[in-house]
Amino acid sequence: MKDMNDSPLYKMMHPKSIAFWGASKDPTGMGSFQLAQLLALGFEGAVYPIHPKDKKVNGLPAYANIRDVPGPVDLAVFVLPTRVVPEILEECGQAGITRIIITSAGFGEMGSEGKDVQDRLVEIARRYGISFLGPNCIGVVNPYTKLNTTFFPYEVSPGFIGMASQSGSFVTQMFSYLGNFGLGFSQAFSVGNEAMLDLTDCIEYLGFCPNTKVIALYVEGIRRGREFVRVAREVSKKKPIVAYYVGGSEAGSRAGKSHTGALAGPDPLYDGIFKQCGIIRASSAAELFDMCFVLGTQPLPRGDRVAVLTHSGGPGAAAADTVDRTGLKLANFSSNTFEQLAALLPHTGRMSNPVDLTFNRSPRDYVEAIPSALLQDKGVDSLFIYLLMPAHRVAQVIEATGVSKEKAKMMAAEFVNIQAELAASLAPKFGKPVVGGSFATREDPYTRELQDRGVPMLPSPERAIRALAALHRYARTRRDLSRSGG
Amino acid sequence: MKDMNDSPLYKMMHPKSIAFWGASKDPTGMGSFQLAQLLALGFEGAVYPIHPKDKKVNGLPAYANIRDVPGPVDLAVFVLPTRVVPEILEECGQAGITRIIITSAGFGEMGSEGKDVQDRLVEIARRYGISFLGPNCIGVVNPYTKLNTTFFPYEVSPGFIGMASQSGSFVTQMFSYLGNFGLGFSQAFSVGNEAMLDLTDCIEYLGFCPNTKVIALYVEGIRRGREFVRVAREVSKKKPIVAYYVGGSEAGSRAGKSHTGALAGPDPLYDGIFKQCGIIRASSAAELFDMCFVLGTQPLPRGDRVAVLTHSGGPGAAAADTVDRTGLKLANFSSNTFEQLAALLPHTGRMSNPVDLTFNRSPRDYVEAIPSALLQDKGVDSLFIYLLMPAHRVAQVIEATGVSKEKAKMMAAEFVNIQAELAASLAPKFGKPVVGGSFATREDPYTRELQDRGVPMLPSPERAIRALAALHRYARTRRDLSRSGG
Repeated sequence: MKDMNDSPLYKMMHPKSIAFWGASKDPTGMGSFQLAQLLALGFEGAVYPIHPKDKKVNGLPAYANIRDVPGPVDLAVFVLPTRVVPEILEECGQAGITRIIITSAGFGEMGSEGKDVQDRLVEIARRYGISFLGPNCIGVVNPYTKLNTTFFPYEVSPGFIGMASQSGSFVTQMFSYLGNFGLGFSQAFSVGNEAMLDLTDCIEYLGFCPNTKVIALYVEGIRRGREFVRVAREVSKKKPIVAYYVGGSEAGSRAGKSHTGALAGPDPLYDGIFKQCGIIRASSAAELFDMCFVLGTQPLPRGDRVAVLTHSGGPGAAAADTVDRTGLKLANFSSNTFEQLAALLPHTGRMSNPVDLTFNRSPRDYVEAIPSALLQDKGVDSLFIYLLMPAHRVAQVIEATGVSKEKAKMMAAEFVNIQAELAASLAPKFGKPVVGGSFATREDPYTRELQDRGVPMLPSPERAIRALAALHRYARTRRDLSRSGG
Repeated sequence: MKDMNDSPLYKMMHPKSIAFWGASKDPTGMGSFQLAQLLALGFEGAVYPIHPKDKKVNGLPAYANIRDVPGPVDLAVFVLPTRVVPEILEECGQAGITRIIITSAGFGEMGSEGKDVQDRLVEIARRYGISFLGPNCIGVVNPYTKLNTTFFPYEVSPGFIGMASQSGSFVTQMFSYLGNFGLGFSQAFSVGNEAMLDLTDCIEYLGFCPNTKVIALYVEGIRRGREFVRVAREVSKKKPIVAYYVGGSEAGSRAGKSHTGALAGPDPLYDGIFKQCGIIRASSAAELFDMCFVLGTQPLPRGDRVAVLTHSGGPGAAAADTVDRTGLKLANFSSNTFEQLAALLPHTGRMSNPVDLTFNRSPRDYVEAIPSALLQDKGVDSLFIYLLMPAHRVAQVIEATGVSKEKAKMMAAEFVNIQAELAASLAPKFGKPVVGGSFATREDPYTRELQDRGVPMLPSPERAIRALAALHRYARTRRDLSRSGG
C-alpha cells in the first residue's frame, strides 16, 4: 500500500452516501438511535434509510429496498437481526455496494454454528467484491468527515488519535472520556469479529492517515500474526502505536474469546510480538490514552534523563519515584544550570533533581526561566513540570488587592492564559518533550488552557511520568527500527 | 492509649480557641490566606490573630502579644519566618499553650544547621509540656469541628478518610480531588518534619476516631520503626490502613530526604514492615484513595472469588484480566445461578464469568435480579458491576416517546435515582462487597448518585478491581492478625 486511498477502509471512512438498515419510525429503537447520531454529527452526504414498511425514518424519506435508492451508495450500515444479514448482504452485492459495516451480533463469537453463518457472509462478500467491517462491531467514527455510525453521540473535537479496537465500548465510551482531556479521535474503528477487515488493515490505513499522530489499539487477540508484525513494524517507523492487551491472563483470554472469538496468547508471547514491531504496551485503558496524549504531541527525546520541576514536595517525590520505577533516569545538572537555578529559587528550595521551589514564589519564573534553565542543559532529555494554578485562588488574591470581583476574575483568566502560553512554548522552543501533571481535572481553567495548547496535562504526576516513559521507549524503538532497516 | 482524648492530637483537632501568628493586614500574605481558610470553613471558637503592629487582621481584632489575648488558647498556629520560631514558641510556653502547629520551613530538612534549631524547638517544647506538629508542615483539617489551618479552602463534605501525610500537598490538594468522588477527610494531618508528633501518633489517634473508617498514609520514611509497627498492627485489627510509600526507589528516597528529612529504606524492607502490621500498600496517590473508597464503604469478603457483571465486552474483559493480575479469582457459578441467569440474559449474552449482557436490555434487572442471582451464590465473595447509564441519553429516549423535554429530564433523573438506589442496596442486603466502575466521572448524574449512596464508583474497571483487591487483601490480613492474637 502506498497511500490511504489504496485501503478498502478509505472509502468506508470518506463516503459521499450511506444506506442505513435497521432504523425505523420508532425513535427508541437501536437502529434509529444509531442513525440519529450520524445525523447529529452533521454528515453532509446523502443518507438513505432502508425499511420494508416505514416511509419516513429519522425525518428522512425511507426506501423499501436498496434497488429503490435514487443514487449511488458508498457505504452500507446494518443494524439488523442476525438471521436477515446474509440476505441483505447479497442484495447489497447485487446493487454494487462494496463497503459495509455489520453491527449485528450472533456470529463467530457464539461458537461453531455462528461461525458457519459468518463464513457464509465472507463467501458472499468475496463473490461481490465487498469489504465489510464486523460483524459484532459498533461501527466507526471519522469526525473530519462528520461520520459516526455508532450509537453514541460524538460531541468532542476531532483529534489526532487513530484507534482500532476489538471492543466497541473502547471506541464509543471514549468519546467523552477523551473530551475530558481535550482530546479526540482522528478516526476510530470497532472491528468486532474481524471476519474480513481486521486490526492489521486498520493499522496500515491509519499509518497513512495525515490526521492520525498516534495509533491506539485495544487487543484481545491477533488473528494474522505474520501480517500484523510486518505492517505494524513498518508503521512504527513513521508513527507510534500503543496497545492495551487484555488476553495475557487466563481470565482475560477467556473473556476475549467469547467476546469476539479472537484467540489470545500468554503475556510473554504478546510482549515479544509487540517488541518485534515497536508497539508500546499500556497496562490499562486510561494508560493507553495517557500515552497517546504524550506520543501525539511531544518531540522525541534523545536520551533517558528526565528533569522534574515542582513546588509541591510530595508530588515531586512521587514523580521522582515513578521515574526510577519506569526505567528512566533523573538527570544530573551542569554547574551552569545550578548557577541559574540558584538565582531563581527561594532559600528553602532544592536545586538538585527534582527541583522543588517548596512554594511558587514567582509563577512566571516557574514556567519560563526555571524550565528554560533545565531544558538548555545538555544532560536533560525531557522535563516533567507539576503545573497547578487554581484560577479562583488567583482571582481571590487579585480581589484582595482591592480590585472588583468581576475584574479580578478577568485578570485571573488572563494571567492563567499567559502562564499556559509560556508553558506550551517550552517544548517547541527546546525541541525536547515537556509533560505536565497535577491532581486537577479539565474543569480547572489552567489545566484546560494547557491541554488546549497541546501540553499533555495528566491527572497525577505518576500517570504523567508513566506516559513520558512510553515516549522514551518509543524514541529508543524508533532508533532501533531505523538502524535494523526494512 | 484507651481513647482518642488520651492523644495530644485530640485537643489540637478539637480546639475551642486558636491563636494565629503570621497573618497581617495584607490579605495577600501567606498567613492571611491561611487564616482566611479557617474563617471560611466557619470555625466557631475564638480566633486571636497575633501581630506586632496591625490592629485588625482578616476582620478580627489582632493582639500584639500572646499575653494580651483575653481568653485561654487551646491551639497556636505559626506561619512565621524560620528565625523567630524559637522565641515565639518560648512565649507560647510561658502563656501555657500546649498545642502548636508550626508550618515554618527551614529546619531539619535543610541539613545539620537547620536540625540544630529544630532540636532547640523540641527542647523548649519539652520544657513547657508542649506538643507541636511540624515544623515544615502545612497544617491540619477536621471538617467535623470546622477546623482548617491549611492555606487551601476545604469546600467538600466531611468524610471517612483519616490521613497522616509527610507531604502537605497530599493533604490540601486532595480536598478537591476527593470531592470529585464525593469523598472527604474525617481528619487529616500534614506532619512535616515530625520533630515531636509523627505518623505513629496520628495512626494511634485516628484508630480511635469514630468518623474515620479507613486511614491513609503518605510515607517518605518511617522514624520510629518499632513503635510504628506496634501501633499500626493494633489499629489494623480495627480498621484498615493504606500507605503510599515513595521512598523505595533511589530517586524517591533522595527526594524524600530533602523534603522532610525522613530516612527511607528499600522496597523489600518497607514491604516487610507494612506486611507485619497489616498495612495495604498503594502504588500511587490515586490508588491510595481508590482503596480508601472501597475499604471505607464495603463489608469484608470471606474469600477471593469475584463475579464480574457487564454489558460492555471490552471493559468486562479488562476487569477479568485485572482480577487475574491482582491475585483474585473469577468465581465459578452454581447450576442454580446459571438457571436464574438463563432467564434474565438476552440470547447474545454470556452467562459464565464475566457475565456479559452485550447490551443493557432491562436496566432494572441489571442492578437488581442479575446481581442478586450472583451475590446469593455461595461461590461468589464479591461483585464488580460495570455501571454506565448516561442520563442525557435516557432523557433522549423518553423524549422520543413524545414526552416534553422538561418532563423527560425529570423522568430521567428519577429513573437514574431508582437505578442507583437498587445498586446501593446490594452490598448491605447480601453482606458482600459490591464495587462499581465505568469511564464516567462525577459530572455524570448516575455516577454521582451511586457515589453519594456509598457505592465506590471508580473511573475505570481496572482501578475498581485493584481497589477491590485491596479489600480482599485486608480481609485476609485481618483474619491473620486476629488469629495471631496481640
